[in-house]
Amino acid sequence: MKTPSLLIVLSGPSGAGKGTLSKLLVKEMPNLYCSVSATTRPKREGEVDGVNYYFISEEEFMEMKAKGEFLEWAKVYDNYYGTPIKKVEEQLRKGNDVLLEIDIQGALQVKKRFSKGVFIFIVPPSIDELKRRIIKRGTDPQEVINKRMSCVQDELSYVSEYDYVVVNDNLETALEKLKAIITAEKCRPHRQKICIE
Amino acid sequence: MKTPSLLIVLSGPSGAGKGTLSKLLVKEMPNLYCSVSATTRPKREGEVDGVNYYFISEEEFMEMKAKGEFLEWAKVYDNYYGTPIKKVEEQLRKGNDVLLEIDIQGALQVKKRFSKGVFIFIVPPSIDELKRRIIKRGTDPQEVINKRMSCVQDELSYVSEYDYVVVNDNLETALEKLKAIITAEKCRPHRQKICIE
Repeated sequence: MKTPSLLIVLSGPSGAGKGTLSKLLVKEMPNLYCSVSATTRPKREGEVDGVNYYFISEEEFMEMKAKGEFLEWAKVYDNYYGTPIKKVEEQLRKGNDVLLEIDIQGALQVKKRFSKGVFIFIVPPSIDELKRRIIKRGTDPQEVINKRMSCVQDELSYVSEYDYVVVNDNLETALEKLKAIITAEKCRPHRQKICIE
Repeated sequence: MKTPSLLIVLSGPSGAGKGTLSKLLVKEMPNLYCSVSATTRPKREGEVDGVNYYFISEEEFMEMKAKGEFLEWAKVYDNYYGTPIKKVEEQLRKGNDVLLEIDIQGALQVKKRFSKGVFIFIVPPSIDELKRRIIKRGTDPQEVINKRMSCVQDELSYVSEYDYVVVNDNLETALEKLKAIITAEKCRPHRQKICIE
């Protein structure tokens, strides 16, 4: 029996660890394609265009948005982010699973168009730990850190919109949980054709 | 964070392998309590009272049923089967997971009382394989085998009532899927208290 392809959405507050978890998950699952987002935010040190993000101008972003070429888009901390729809659909048609690592606004938009997606909320073990991680990353100025932290309580209230919540207190355990969720979701009756004649 | 206790219902056509899978699952999961059913059917060779089933008379069964002491009960191939409710509730209160291995009629009854249970449908890879397994078990006379086989198509139509369907074509793979389903279900938002203040 062919297993169905899944659209998996990893979301949660900034600093919860969804980026790290996405990378590990893709490494372990050969048929999992990680969607690359487009963004207008400046490239951080070490980031590669087309790998971490497609870094585009605000003008280009607005043009794609106007043409309906984003599965979801959001403005987060003064920058635009969006998921080009074309590659996602391409991979799903091929029978591959697709992973989206996006913020909460984006996830809610995807849910409206792909209600059969698997929506996973990644949370940090504590607010203090979240702050520590964002500061440690060292990529954001204090102002942005403060902005992120003030949004967190609000962001956590969206947990009930998701199918699953994974507390990222330990990377290995969190990764095992993500893999289990994918295995379990492939066993959903509505995703399977029972061919036992 | 304390993980919530689950009521897991393994169900499916007779001969799909739910008995074998239950035994393996309980062996691997220390906090999983396998509920022991009461039945009026004759003890098969090698079966032990209180381990495989509580073997009781039809009179005793009817008395327990009248007192509302069964979480579910069913008449299958002229015999009665029922799950004593007391031990199930006891284990769930203790924080243990409880596994019920029951037929389809029973599962539908449990679903009415425990809608938050996890309902898993075990199916054989094919009808021919199912017949082969039932014959190989060698415990049923030809008449019972015929009765079982004529019910199978009807039984398979209940798959959409379940949360998950696991094709038991390979014991090890099926067992991995069951473990993944349990892990995933513990990540459901409604089962968790997010305590990140």
